[in-house]
Parts: sequence; structure tokens; C-alpha cells
Amino acid sequence: MKAKILVALKSGVLDPQGKAIQHALLGLGFPGVGEVRVGKAIDIALSETDPAKARAQAEEMCRKLLANTVIESYRIEIEP
Amino acid sequence: MKAKILVALKSGVLDPQGKAIQHALLGLGFPGVGEVRVGKAIDIALSETDPAKARAQAEEMCRKLLANTVIESYRIEIEP
Repeated sequence: MKAKILVALKSGVLDPQGKAIQHALLGLGFPGVGEVRVGKAIDIALSETDPAKARAQAEEMCRKLLANTVIESYRIEIEP
Repeated sequence: MKAKILVALKSGVLDPQGKAIQHALLGLGFPGVGEVRVGKAIDIALSETDPAKARAQAEEMCRKLLANTVIESYRIEIEP
């Protein structure tokens, strides 16, 4: 199975990288640009074949390594 | 409108960050972990209200700033 994990900063947490992109886009002549938020998209190939077990594994990976749950939230999609 | 942009390394391009995550996960006791690829998820708020124009703007942003099209590909989703 494949786990597609999206790790994003929680709303309310400052995102300096997003701010920098916003300013760069405004400077490049895109006047309609508002808030920009940047997250990580992590694709993991898993040998697990049961979707529920694959999701449980991915959850544990997020909690243990991939996300800092104090400031980041994560979303997991499991694909065959 | 909101543009959700996913920038990922093209397949075939080495991903050292993904490799590091893979090794860390194996070290943490997740034996079934295969290839790991890491990309960027960029959410941009746009004042544009026409979906087609918003997509065209996002395309231009990707080409000009957000993606290095030599080694990265991008995918754009437009949401209201």
C-alpha cells in the first residue's frame, strides 16, 4: 500500500516560509495573493497489504517522527 | 479562490530527505517501509474569483517561483 501523508502547520502558528513566498509572489507581480501556507507531502511505500493496518502504521509514524504535533497537524490517505 | 499546489521531485531524481526518513523509520522499528518521497504542499489564497484564471495564475507562479521544473513537477487544485 502507499501512504500519502500531509503535514501542515496548525492554523495560528506563524509560517515564515509561507510569508516569504507571499512576498516573493507579490514582488513578481501577482497582486491577488493572500495568505500562503507551506506543508510537507510525504509519500511512503508500505509492504503492509491491509488498509486499516497501513493507516495505523502511518499514524504511528506521524506521531513518532514525521509531525511535531505541538505545532503541526497531519492527514493520512491510504492508497492501494 | 484557493490554490492547493503540490510540488514533488520528478521520479528518477534522488530524494535524500526521503532516504533519511526511510532510514529513520526503519530504525524506529517499521520494517515494511519502502521508498519515501518528500514534496511541498503550498496553499495560496487568491483574490481571483474565476477558477480558470486562478488556475492560470497558479501555473505561472509554479513556473516562475514555486517549482524548479528541471527536477520537480507540480500539480494544482483550485478550490472555492
